[in-house]
Amino acid sequence: MSSTIRGNAVIFTQGGPTAVINATWVGIVQGLILCKDITGIWGALNGIDGVMKEDFVDLMAQTAGTLQAISYTPATQLLSTRKKPGPEENKLMLDVFQKRNIRYVFGIGGNDTSESLDIINDAARDREYELRVFHVAKTVDNDLMENDHTPGYGSAARFVANAFRGANLDNQCFGGLYIGVCMGRHAGFLTAAAALGRASPADGPHLVYLPECPFNLEKFAADVDDAYRKHNRCVIAVSEGIEDENHTPILQVLSKDRLEADSHGNLQLSGTGALADGLVNYLKEYLEGKGVVKKLRARGDTFGYTQRSFPDQSPIDREEAINLGMFAARCAESGNIDGSCAIVRVSDDPYQSDYKLVPLKNVAGKTRRMPAEFIAAGGNDVTAAFVRYAKPLIGELTALGSLDMSRKVKF
Amino acid sequence: MSSTIRGNAVIFTQGGPTAVINATWVGIVQGLILCKDITGIWGALNGIDGVMKEDFVDLMAQTAGTLQAISYTPATQLLSTRKKPGPEENKLMLDVFQKRNIRYVFGIGGNDTSESLDIINDAARDREYELRVFHVAKTVDNDLMENDHTPGYGSAARFVANAFRGANLDNQCFGGLYIGVCMGRHAGFLTAAAALGRASPADGPHLVYLPECPFNLEKFAADVDDAYRKHNRCVIAVSEGIEDENHTPILQVLSKDRLEADSHGNLQLSGTGALADGLVNYLKEYLEGKGVVKKLRARGDTFGYTQRSFPDQSPIDREEAINLGMFAARCAESGNIDGSCAIVRVSDDPYQSDYKLVPLKNVAGKTRRMPAEFIAAGGNDVTAAFVRYAKPLIGELTALGSLDMSRKVKF
Repeated sequence: MSSTIRGNAVIFTQGGPTAVINATWVGIVQGLILCKDITGIWGALNGIDGVMKEDFVDLMAQTAGTLQAISYTPATQLLSTRKKPGPEENKLMLDVFQKRNIRYVFGIGGNDTSESLDIINDAARDREYELRVFHVAKTVDNDLMENDHTPGYGSAARFVANAFRGANLDNQCFGGLYIGVCMGRHAGFLTAAAALGRASPADGPHLVYLPECPFNLEKFAADVDDAYRKHNRCVIAVSEGIEDENHTPILQVLSKDRLEADSHGNLQLSGTGALADGLVNYLKEYLEGKGVVKKLRARGDTFGYTQRSFPDQSPIDREEAINLGMFAARCAESGNIDGSCAIVRVSDDPYQSDYKLVPLKNVAGKTRRMPAEFIAAGGNDVTAAFVRYAKPLIGELTALGSLDMSRKVKF
Repeated sequence: MSSTIRGNAVIFTQGGPTAVINATWVGIVQGLILCKDITGIWGALNGIDGVMKEDFVDLMAQTAGTLQAISYTPATQLLSTRKKPGPEENKLMLDVFQKRNIRYVFGIGGNDTSESLDIINDAARDREYELRVFHVAKTVDNDLMENDHTPGYGSAARFVANAFRGANLDNQCFGGLYIGVCMGRHAGFLTAAAALGRASPADGPHLVYLPECPFNLEKFAADVDDAYRKHNRCVIAVSEGIEDENHTPILQVLSKDRLEADSHGNLQLSGTGALADGLVNYLKEYLEGKGVVKKLRARGDTFGYTQRSFPDQSPIDREEAINLGMFAARCAESGNIDGSCAIVRVSDDPYQSDYKLVPLKNVAGKTRRMPAEFIAAGGNDVTAAFVRYAKPLIGELTALGSLDMSRKVKF
């Protein structure tokens, strides 16, 4: 069972897009194309839906120039779905695999996708159909087990770091309060990236709130009060996923609106400015009520989908996304039967990474959260260890300058 | 009165930041530093507040490296205010000018700033104090009279074009509805930039709503209904300043919340996600109610402050911002008494611009809006003429690719 088997390969993408998913599947294609046993490389459209409907694009028939341009393109040209396959869907997919002699399946996605692939893999084994199933890591949330970090995270973190560099400078002009709400349902990695652009201790974000730490509105207000008195302004990064000590989302605490849930039972937190607006209003009332400031200039932005789809890849994220795809192809070619392709870190300085194949079950349905060493003691900032960890992943940022304020005109 | 006069120069920045304000004042410094009659170049901190308080930074004492790095830095290192000077403030400022032999005043700002400078200029003339007052154009809204376009617009438009390129690709993955709300209180130029990234007619934004056209909720819903049936998804760009036929802001039509106003009487439209959320909910009810779709995936993002402060200058915007600052210095050196420094267009293809000095009163307090030739007949899109006008201003964008969907696998 460990040698290659002659047949077709299918690639699909699932879940929320990133800036480098296309780069990963282009990497898979570039790797598979060298393998004589692989007779066709097909992209299923709209994730597992495309598999069930046999809606495949011939990826071998795309020109090299098309693939090259696509590798720079955010989101996924193979389209996506959040559907989780049940027994009915698994049967349908296995029927297609057998009928079309599909022997290699590559699913690019997060922990939901890994879980789906694990189920498909088990079902193929039950049927005694020889299938090689590979999960290839992807998620801006950076929340997959076994991965030092995931493709997609570096580019999204680059956007968040840059957005906060701009927001900090913008807030400096007028003072007041600025809240930026970042993606990350259960893991704070992306919100934490807000701190990566700080050039001095006076720079925002002055406070960072992660879903890993229970969020208390009174403690939050007191933190902001302190920071505001110190800096005469305050820039705050908040994860969309913050919850109170009873695991009630703060958005729910602040509002009574009903919230959407997808088929994995996830609440809709993105695509609405409600959390930022709710927090801004809460702080305005608190700080004006306490007389800290008479009329507080307070603004809230929700970075939304731009975080994951802005066309500005982190160069290292792009490179790793392609390489992880090529690694997945190499795993298939070298006769590995199944697994999840993950990134490991070899060294911090100089930054070096490598790739490994781990059992699907190690990644499936599990969520990695920010380790304690990355979270500051007060639960309202990140640590230097986090900055060391994440900075190499976002690539070089444009160097910015600041006025030498010691050169005041003296009369 | 037309030769230069020996004295100090003061530069201040007012109003909302852009990505290239610093580039403009660095350009002014680079120009003034060559003029022997100018004895000091001072940056007033926080706009006219810094003038009144004599809170000046010595800009001649900054290193060349500092100025160079600052020219790449978004927002304004001279800080800002939205304060509009009254008779009391004008008296205070003129006292400072006389006391400190300040003979050159450069105010970088929008039409509010131009108006403030015009008032200061008249007050100096009444006092028979020889003062040279220059307004240097700046605004992401691109709404100044006499200017082909304004520094700051190109970089903000670049961000909006890129954000919509990403949002369009992201929306393509899942389908559904996406609304992106853009800055621009009275002028739709920035919202219109959403269309600059379209690569094909199927690309979003499929609809663009500008503050120049009265906004009707029923017409809007019908437009979206049409577009949704055509593309099986819909990406929409909306200006924060859209109003109904009675000039009631749509945000006010949709919500009963009280809205903030600044000292110029402007409503707070940025820094809140309320408009996007209100429109999303309205469309969800409409399309689900009509049975167009059973459960609509609908998301709304508000691009917020990132539009004006994201650290990614349009190269041409940066160059023109520096050059306009140097032009202002040259005007001062060549003995012009006052005026507003504006950009004119020499040719479209190849794109070439030049600079001119116009009377302050031509710009002061006036708003330029999108000309009719830039707005599509239905009032829900831009024209090819707008794209020709705006495309050169945002600089080269990363080339993206798309899958050749004609290469489907046939069984």
